[in-house]
Amino acid sequence: MRAGIVGLGLMGGSMGLALQEVRAQLGIKSLVGFDHNVLHAQMALSLGLVEECVELEQIQECDLIILATPVEGIIQILAHIQPAPTSTIIELGGAKVQMMCAIPKAIRAQVVASHPMCGTEFYGPKAALKDLYKHKIVVLVDGEYSGISHLQRAKEVFSAIGMQMVKMGAQAHDQHVAFVSHLPHAISYALANVVLAQESPQNILSLAAGGFKDMSRLSKSSPQMWRGIFEQNQTRLLEALELFIAEMQRTKAMLETQEWDKLCAWMQRANCLQEFM
Amino acid sequence: MRAGIVGLGLMGGSMGLALQEVRAQLGIKSLVGFDHNVLHAQMALSLGLVEECVELEQIQECDLIILATPVEGIIQILAHIQPAPTSTIIELGGAKVQMMCAIPKAIRAQVVASHPMCGTEFYGPKAALKDLYKHKIVVLVDGEYSGISHLQRAKEVFSAIGMQMVKMGAQAHDQHVAFVSHLPHAISYALANVVLAQESPQNILSLAAGGFKDMSRLSKSSPQMWRGIFEQNQTRLLEALELFIAEMQRTKAMLETQEWDKLCAWMQRANCLQEFM
Repeated sequence: MRAGIVGLGLMGGSMGLALQEVRAQLGIKSLVGFDHNVLHAQMALSLGLVEECVELEQIQECDLIILATPVEGIIQILAHIQPAPTSTIIELGGAKVQMMCAIPKAIRAQVVASHPMCGTEFYGPKAALKDLYKHKIVVLVDGEYSGISHLQRAKEVFSAIGMQMVKMGAQAHDQHVAFVSHLPHAISYALANVVLAQESPQNILSLAAGGFKDMSRLSKSSPQMWRGIFEQNQTRLLEALELFIAEMQRTKAMLETQEWDKLCAWMQRANCLQEFM
Repeated sequence: MRAGIVGLGLMGGSMGLALQEVRAQLGIKSLVGFDHNVLHAQMALSLGLVEECVELEQIQECDLIILATPVEGIIQILAHIQPAPTSTIIELGGAKVQMMCAIPKAIRAQVVASHPMCGTEFYGPKAALKDLYKHKIVVLVDGEYSGISHLQRAKEVFSAIGMQMVKMGAQAHDQHVAFVSHLPHAISYALANVVLAQESPQNILSLAAGGFKDMSRLSKSSPQMWRGIFEQNQTRLLEALELFIAEMQRTKAMLETQEWDKLCAWMQRANCLQEFM
């Protein structure tokens, strides 16, 4: 099997490293990559994320094609790609409903939509990690629209690199990740910007401990990648944002009216989260 | 030196363990503790956080008295405590302006107000960690109101357990920690409650990865402790909350009007946070 990865940053680069670990198991004979950023392509090569960097057209000939660019890039590539008839395309975009509508019918069966629930705040080829995917969850989205052999191949790949698979429809996926991923990123970016806008952020941040570091970690994430996800999942994210802003306004009201018992009960309710996680 | 700790949870219990590590260096001959929760006192004893649990009145006789209860408890204790004339009282409360006003004049010089910038989301005696304070920052608040010998003793203690000291006025402290600690906690509680209020939180949370886990970690924190801090730092927290809600509303507006370039620039600004941390 020839494998090709488009987009050699955190997700694609880590996929390159992960596939190399299991190349015998999957029967991978060659592993090529493409990144439209020439510096990133060179870097990926020197870091050994793939064996060779090629043109996008050559990736089309691979048996396994991984699309790991920001989500709007995936949509563009899917619109123009002309894969070999037996190629399996696995796309890793973080928002799905709009993407699903954008996949051309001619290649629909060849595409397996997936969303690995993992990542770090770092990006670019240097951020690639061999074990990024290991023991993590990957959502297989609207799998019934993929051809059986392609879905099977995708499952073999995810299983080989140690992922646990969860099936989900595109609507449910986008709604759930709005809460569990997209809203937390928006909050983290906002928190960072609020502190940076203060008169002396360096004095404030000199007191930052584990709590603030955790809450602001996601604000270091790639603006390019998140711009795409926010754009693709605008509706669902707006719904989640609205609920969150309303919750913060209720919090503010409890503080203003000094309803300490109510505030305490509200925190106790939040404590219940740990029963689910 | 006889040392006594009031409040044997995360902060007080960890202080007990830390002091035992350096007891020779500080010349500690005995280490006693008090917790108004009898079960916690027993647990602290069996975990070896202190050598003996005594009545609050007996703690007054100690040379070094650590107050590590929730902040409203500290204020109550300071109002009634009758320490020996040479006792040094170190209080560890998370909000200071109201506390400073509440310290009786008769014992003002004996009190050293401090805020160790460390913690975890866990609480109670079982949460105590030997190295909680090591290599962390402690803010010495309004140190000029403490007697020189008491301030000196407090510095020796913090230095012995491996902390870095930062001096700050109560006003600046409360303003800074509102952003770096109190607001992040309020956000985390709110995020948890928003997700828990959805129709199927378990389905949403089945997709939770590192990002959501980090953003929701603080929501597991002690409601009792945070009720006190929110109450004590109400004004500053409200200011920070207002700024944060306004920032989230701007975020929502950018999404609604599809100003993707502006949103991208906003995320790039947030990325600058890492230059300070």
